[in-house]
Amino acid sequence: MAKVRALVLERQHELALRDIELPMDTGPGQVKIRIHTVGVCGSDVHYYAHGKIGPFVVNAPMVLGHEAAGTIVEVGAGVTHLKVGDRVCMEPGIPDPNSKASRLGMYNVDPAVTFWATPPIHGVLTPEVVHPANYTYRLPDNVSFAEGAMVEPFAVGMQAASKAKIVPGDTAVVLGAGPIGTMVAIAALAGGCARAIVADLAQPKLDIATRYQGVIPVNIREQSLSEEVARLTDGWGADIIFECSGAPKAWETIMELPRPGGVIVAVGLPVNPVGFDISSASTKEIRIETVFRYAHQYERSIALLGSGRVDLKPLISETFGFEDSIKAFDRALEGRPSDVKLQIVME
Amino acid sequence: MAKVRALVLERQHELALRDIELPMDTGPGQVKIRIHTVGVCGSDVHYYAHGKIGPFVVNAPMVLGHEAAGTIVEVGAGVTHLKVGDRVCMEPGIPDPNSKASRLGMYNVDPAVTFWATPPIHGVLTPEVVHPANYTYRLPDNVSFAEGAMVEPFAVGMQAASKAKIVPGDTAVVLGAGPIGTMVAIAALAGGCARAIVADLAQPKLDIATRYQGVIPVNIREQSLSEEVARLTDGWGADIIFECSGAPKAWETIMELPRPGGVIVAVGLPVNPVGFDISSASTKEIRIETVFRYAHQYERSIALLGSGRVDLKPLISETFGFEDSIKAFDRALEGRPSDVKLQIVME
Amino acid sequence: MAKVRALVLERQHELALRDIELPMDTGPGQVKIRIHTVGVCGSDVHYYAHGKIGPFVVNAPMVLGHEAAGTIVEVGAGVTHLKVGDRVCMEPGIPDPNSKASRLGMYNVDPAVTFWATPPIHGVLTPEVVHPANYTYRLPDNVSFAEGAMVEPFAVGMQAASKAKIVPGDTAVVLGAGPIGTMVAIAALAGGCARAIVADLAQPKLDIATRYQGVIPVNIREQSLSEEVARLTDGWGADIIFECSGAPKAWETIMELPRPGGVIVAVGLPVNPVGFDISSASTKEIRIETVFRYAHQYERSIALLGSGRVDLKPLISETFGFEDSIKAFDRALEGRPSDVKLQIVME
Amino acid sequence: MAKVRALVLERQHELALRDIELPMDTGPGQVKIRIHTVGVCGSDVHYYAHGKIGPFVVNAPMVLGHEAAGTIVEVGAGVTHLKVGDRVCMEPGIPDPNSKASRLGMYNVDPAVTFWATPPIHGVLTPEVVHPANYTYRLPDNVSFAEGAMVEPFAVGMQAASKAKIVPGDTAVVLGAGPIGTMVAIAALAGGCARAIVADLAQPKLDIATRYQGVIPVNIREQSLSEEVARLTDGWGADIIFECSGAPKAWETIMELPRPGGVIVAVGLPVNPVGFDISSASTKEIRIETVFRYAHQYERSIALLGSGRVDLKPLISETFGFEDSIKAFDRALEGRPSDVKLQIVME
Repeated sequence: MAKVRALVLERQHELALRDIELPMDTGPGQVKIRIHTVGVCGSDVHYYAHGKIGPFVVNAPMVLGHEAAGTIVEVGAGVTHLKVGDRVCMEPGIPDPNSKASRLGMYNVDPAVTFWATPPIHGVLTPEVVHPANYTYRLPDNVSFAEGAMVEPFAVGMQAASKAKIVPGDTAVVLGAGPIGTMVAIAALAGGCARAIVADLAQPKLDIATRYQGVIPVNIREQSLSEEVARLTDGWGADIIFECSGAPKAWETIMELPRPGGVIVAVGLPVNPVGFDISSASTKEIRIETVFRYAHQYERSIALLGSGRVDLKPLISETFGFEDSIKAFDRALEGRPSDVKLQIVME
Repeated sequence: MAKVRALVLERQHELALRDIELPMDTGPGQVKIRIHTVGVCGSDVHYYAHGKIGPFVVNAPMVLGHEAAGTIVEVGAGVTHLKVGDRVCMEPGIPDPNSKASRLGMYNVDPAVTFWATPPIHGVLTPEVVHPANYTYRLPDNVSFAEGAMVEPFAVGMQAASKAKIVPGDTAVVLGAGPIGTMVAIAALAGGCARAIVADLAQPKLDIATRYQGVIPVNIREQSLSEEVARLTDGWGADIIFECSGAPKAWETIMELPRPGGVIVAVGLPVNPVGFDISSASTKEIRIETVFRYAHQYERSIALLGSGRVDLKPLISETFGFEDSIKAFDRALEGRPSDVKLQIVME
Repeated sequence: MAKVRALVLERQHELALRDIELPMDTGPGQVKIRIHTVGVCGSDVHYYAHGKIGPFVVNAPMVLGHEAAGTIVEVGAGVTHLKVGDRVCMEPGIPDPNSKASRLGMYNVDPAVTFWATPPIHGVLTPEVVHPANYTYRLPDNVSFAEGAMVEPFAVGMQAASKAKIVPGDTAVVLGAGPIGTMVAIAALAGGCARAIVADLAQPKLDIATRYQGVIPVNIREQSLSEEVARLTDGWGADIIFECSGAPKAWETIMELPRPGGVIVAVGLPVNPVGFDISSASTKEIRIETVFRYAHQYERSIALLGSGRVDLKPLISETFGFEDSIKAFDRALEGRPSDVKLQIVME
Repeated sequence: MAKVRALVLERQHELALRDIELPMDTGPGQVKIRIHTVGVCGSDVHYYAHGKIGPFVVNAPMVLGHEAAGTIVEVGAGVTHLKVGDRVCMEPGIPDPNSKASRLGMYNVDPAVTFWATPPIHGVLTPEVVHPANYTYRLPDNVSFAEGAMVEPFAVGMQAASKAKIVPGDTAVVLGAGPIGTMVAIAALAGGCARAIVADLAQPKLDIATRYQGVIPVNIREQSLSEEVARLTDGWGADIIFECSGAPKAWETIMELPRPGGVIVAVGLPVNPVGFDISSASTKEIRIETVFRYAHQYERSIALLGSGRVDLKPLISETFGFEDSIKAFDRALEGRPSDVKLQIVME
């Protein structure tokens, strides 16, 4: 353990940039990373605003931050694929490699996963962190720390895109153009879709998504989404619907959108059960997929950034210094529609 | 057209065994079949009792019956794989081969499908019927007409089993032990499941299902299904849940049953939307499949009957002569829990 | 039938631009198209040079050309989704919609398929052609006739990409940078791959492929492909290998390239059986896919062209007038490494 | 380490039942098992006869045996799902849980796997063995030790059946009716096939396979396999071909057997590359799968044995006492066609 400076959520509504005791020994199979950039995630902001997410309650001071990139400064015993000086980003969830889910390749649904900045686990808004080498990924030279810190939210989009089982040239609909919806649209296009019809009420969000080739924006204040989908698909329907709004209302009419044999990927998480119209779904034999975080998506995401086929830089709305971390969170609380991602630079 | 004797649903509540004009010309690509056995299906009975199913309303007299087997008596031009005297069973739905859905191999979700005994299309409780050769399937010598007439409802189970993407040795749960649930359980076991945990309130239905090796009955009046599934799977959950009860209540707790990464196949069709708990589903990354009738299941079903790996004879509860057709329907209306399938023999 | 001008392959080595009798009646379900652009395909050139491909022998004069785009000039009875004036491209193979393969959605492997410019079926290097509306596809306004005529060869790449079952962010290797290999690389990237490592001996071919973002060229005269793949994948191997060279030698060492659990898609067609090292394949549990033309790829391909996510214009090396058709074929015969696609404009 | 009695392969051709030093400490996450039954596997016999298999050479005395069942006699720290007295069978391969392949769920293709009785790792023909609890599986009460020791070879069949992606009611062909071919046929039928057409030259082997419902034997000394497959499938071809003979000759004509869109699973391992006719495979768009041992098949296999849907007892040809182990191996060396599985009982 060592006393280090960190952004600590003391309790609901109260952040402090102060010293705290954190474990700092680099054990076997682990690496120590000097943190460079940390993204501000909606879940961090939610803990700040509400003190909890579902069953996860902040009962003790907790360091925030889980979207991070940095540089290896120490390498534990047995680590061979990483060395001091490597620029890396890190997967915030650590599963039990011997659990049944992990052995089946689905470590994201292992109930034993510990996850940064999910109570009671500390996050990484602090200068250094120790992490399993297996969940630490080297960045290519042409991928910046800022982009490295975007891999975490992009991996959520990639998991949704993978679950959809895109066939090259598919047409997708993305409901909701918030940060997650935008990441999903980008991942769906990178993952083989020809078009992503992105629907939202907020024009500034649609304007950002529209920067990506293949995005067709639909402002649902002005247009009927189902009519637009029918028009764009000659009445056949879209191959894939990514529901990213989390709005229960979206489920009332969602079955109008997919083609026969199409799929709905439920990404947004409504608090309560939504209405699922089985009869309408059955008439088209719709498949529904659900997603939980991500598994095996970091290397794929980094490969897409490194090859230039995905560019996440347009999504970085503003960058703050570590000393201005609380300002960054207060800005995030405002929820400006034109803000996609705020980042904090540590050094 | 020719005047022939048939079981006619005149309107809700009123059946008549009488003459009616039906088309009897065997065109190119068609065959004429002398009907031997017709099963009484829940949908036939539903039209009798209610005069409609969802949007399908009986507005004119309609011949009932769509689960049929018989003998080829005439072969149209261009038909090469069937000949007079062949014992066959027939698929009641006829799609447009040039529709987009048909060309993709999903003819069951072609909106242009016409289906026997679905208004305004006549069924086959009549001595002879003309049908496309492409949807007429030869029965092996060791498969009786009675079994041939069971292929239609079994195909529903097969479609559900196919959609599940069973991995050999999977454990299934089947909610509801009515005729469809029982067919699904048999198809799931034949399709690779090691065990089918079948749940119902009615012990006579469970007793019939239990005749099949691999069925584990759970009377949910007496036992907690989720506890039984947990016990039988060492707390991991079942690989596949087939929801065949159609009861909205089943959806309230269904997410307790599957394992992480498991699948729910929605076979039962509740009238209204059910509650879908996306958060619970996501935590386990559950996949949901829906089914609509069946496509490409007749030959597979007949192969399973022919090889002896599936025996549907225990499900035939009683057989009526054609002249007793109305008695058969009235018996079906009673809904005896020990009745799985009633059949009518034409000759 | 009508007498029309066409590019006719009289016999091996002998082309003539002359009048020929061709059917010109637009029947039900058909459309008549005024041809605008036709691409010169390797198979056309092969018939010119060799008079046959495998079992297909040119025994009578045959019109060449099967990569075509044009404008609807007449619409047959029952055609609703196309109208006179629509700009379209056409699928050259016409299956029997009632065959077993077609009904299963695999019309490309229907033995009854007839295919333009495959003996004895005439091709489309002629001003007008009659074709089934079902295999005629409307082009968006922003897709030119030249691009429309590229859909056919691109569909070959799309079929290979579909068979691979790309997971977003995969790394592909493409063996052979000829026209097909290049199409496959473009389709693989559009279909979700992060990187396509393209290997060839001819630098001019690699230079063309390298114009596409995500292509990593490997000149195998100068570099070891297996070492490059190992370096680029940290020793793990590539997810997908597309074998497009058709060289038997490629199969001798191909198992070094994929990762454990990877896939090889055999696109190139060696004349004789190649050596398949089952032991090496098994150690990694490699899957092998084969492809035959394409099915259901036209709309997907057009969607990718229309959204701007795929640009095939850099592959059009030179365009000839109809009257210079024979020159176009003689140029193709030369086999210049920098020529990818030659096209003929009819009007 | 402790001195224990074991069946030791001293070198090629030389077996001894003698004392040897083996590790006997039950570490954390491990269990100690008193061995009850051990099957004699073809690979054990091959090391005895040839002293090596491919790159694996017996350079030092090695205990044989890897198909084993027994009883837990000691439980290491942290093991919760097993207890002393549990009847179990064990998976002989132990992967590195942190390897890339293991994390992806494909631990069988992890190059770091150690495997019982594969040089230099000792096998289990000895009274007690220490093993990871994670690879030790509890047997239901109705599954005997003899059947438990059959799980290992059956898991090979299950892996092949899983890779085939059987659709319920498929028709399979199994080339070769040796122990592996028979296991594959049983797994394919249990895994959803309606029929397994099993081909061999040796009638006694076919006679054993034919005891299983759904097996159709073809003695290829007397019948043309391709004609039989055509006859049984109305000229369409089989859905799945399991090549279990390992004979290069089988690959010369194998493409005649599958239907368009069918799959070949290569189970048998020829020493040298075989001829792969890509052109014929492509015309039907055949998929080829390869298998390496098995992953995640033990629990599935045990579930099938426990439910009674699979009965492996007819395959146990004879049982020997531990003191007669060498006799068992000499009998196995004879290669009697009617011998499927010989077993050794330790206690």
